Amino acid sequence: MKITALAGGVGGAKMVDGLAQILPAKDLTVIVNTGDDFEHLGHKICPDLDTVCYTLAGLANPETGWGRKFESWGAMESISALGGPDWFRLGDRDLGTHLERTRRLRMGQTLSQITTDFCSAWEIGPGILPMCDEATPTMVLTEQGELAFQDYFVARHCEPQVLSFRFANIENSRPAPGVIEAIKAADHVIICPSNPWVSIDPILSVPGIKDEVGKKHVVAVSPIIGGKAVKGPAAKMFAELGITPSAQAVAQHYGSLLDGFILDNVDEEQVELMESMETTTFVTNTLMKTSEDQAQLAQEIVDWINSR
Amino acid sequence: MKITALAGGVGGAKMVDGLAQILPAKDLTVIVNTGDDFEHLGHKICPDLDTVCYTLAGLANPETGWGRKFESWGAMESISALGGPDWFRLGDRDLGTHLERTRRLRMGQTLSQITTDFCSAWEIGPGILPMCDEATPTMVLTEQGELAFQDYFVARHCEPQVLSFRFANIENSRPAPGVIEAIKAADHVIICPSNPWVSIDPILSVPGIKDEVGKKHVVAVSPIIGGKAVKGPAAKMFAELGITPSAQAVAQHYGSLLDGFILDNVDEEQVELMESMETTTFVTNTLMKTSEDQAQLAQEIVDWINSR
Repeated sequence: MKITALAGGVGGAKMVDGLAQILPAKDLTVIVNTGDDFEHLGHKICPDLDTVCYTLAGLANPETGWGRKFESWGAMESISALGGPDWFRLGDRDLGTHLERTRRLRMGQTLSQITTDFCSAWEIGPGILPMCDEATPTMVLTEQGELAFQDYFVARHCEPQVLSFRFANIENSRPAPGVIEAIKAADHVIICPSNPWVSIDPILSVPGIKDEVGKKHVVAVSPIIGGKAVKGPAAKMFAELGITPSAQAVAQHYGSLLDGFILDNVDEEQVELMESMETTTFVTNTLMKTSEDQAQLAQEIVDWINSR
Repeated sequence: MKITALAGGVGGAKMVDGLAQILPAKDLTVIVNTGDDFEHLGHKICPDLDTVCYTLAGLANPETGWGRKFESWGAMESISALGGPDWFRLGDRDLGTHLERTRRLRMGQTLSQITTDFCSAWEIGPGILPMCDEATPTMVLTEQGELAFQDYFVARHCEPQVLSFRFANIENSRPAPGVIEAIKAADHVIICPSNPWVSIDPILSVPGIKDEVGKKHVVAVSPIIGGKAVKGPAAKMFAELGITPSAQAVAQHYGSLLDGFILDNVDEEQVELMESMETTTFVTNTLMKTSEDQAQLAQEIVDWINSR
């Protein structure tokens, strides 16, 4: 059974890591959000791609969920001492990734080519694809004006109240090479427990991707458990947009794209509501604290998909 | 007594550090070679400026003479693992300097402005000036063709035989703000024990600098001791250009610009030859192994200058 997963950062990386533990590498492809990507200190930084890749390569920092383990901070300390911008914390090993990626981009290589090469160097089995090769920066319209995503997310700690989102330049983007093929080849598409607004919607907004996903069996895993996001601002965003954050709200957000939805045991009472939406549901423990949790959830989802 | 020093990398930094130990900060200005500067991994790297600044700031690695102490190498390891260029070793703290400098250059600041700001952040007392704000890359014509300086120096370990040097774009450069003023204000100009060909000649080739230096009392410290360079390829360059490397050859290289020359005890027999050149000489221990050696040599030179 071939699976293609749509993933953002930390939650997506955990789900994908679980799937990678139980599926043959050739049967798993991950399409990753690049709406969070930005230029900082002259470098192209791809937070979600790096989180997914570092996680699959065993290079991720298990405590933060982002960045690298065994990391040092010499470059940032040096920049801080010179009064330079230190609001976006870049570890030294992580910085090496951005330097080499930026060097290759300046040589004319595409983000998808570079990602393939990096995955090969990091000995990552599953296919990892950026959603597109073009820059499509996510803009957050807030009560304090429109903010670039990392300005909203990191510099302002998601504090400004959100009004809406805009994926700049998305109309000029094309699915990266392999993306449409991976969706076509998939028996199931899994939408990872990532932020629907700023991790999954950008992927689905690249012209052509949502149409192709819509032809497939699609299941989503709720990133909202007990009305709260496991990580990040998803619940806060739902609330600010006037929607009570819940697993059901996530399912409603994806609407008719889904034919299956996975939610946590603590949200079991929402199953009845969702079945009125004609979405079949699977209820289990979706909180992934350990690598074993990740593999177990992945196995349960795959078994459930197979049994339907 | 005001001193203005002309300096390259390691030898220059040692001499300047000695002078900084014995002179009031306001009485010492250093004009630093930027012919070695280059772009690497998207960053502007200024090896001689950084060596001089790190040394004066107490941040230099005392074992290598270049780079920083307490350094880590996470970024380079990461780049190496991705198959990226790792021939020019950049430590993490050092990299922070290049990132912040490059960020400011892209904002439109000049190298001399940035250097002043960095020296302030690093609490360096003496004035440190790049010779010019323009890029004037030193090119080494060798039997293997013309090579950019760092390609010759680092990537090829100075192995190709040298035919001549060219300071690209030097005719379009101007002395950085403060350079001419510092020379005019100096009671003496000291040419540090740096490579005459690729550290001092670029400085003297910036239009206007040599003329202004020529109006001053100028002394040079020999970088050649016992026919060998303390560090770097100076002796090899002399030999390849058909000149027996010696303290005397250094004095001849600078010619009538000098009115005083400092050479090592081991080269005492060359004094007689040099006095026929009408250059007065001072013979002492010029090998600076420790910080105390640096201060002692600086004090001896200043005392000698004062006594003339």
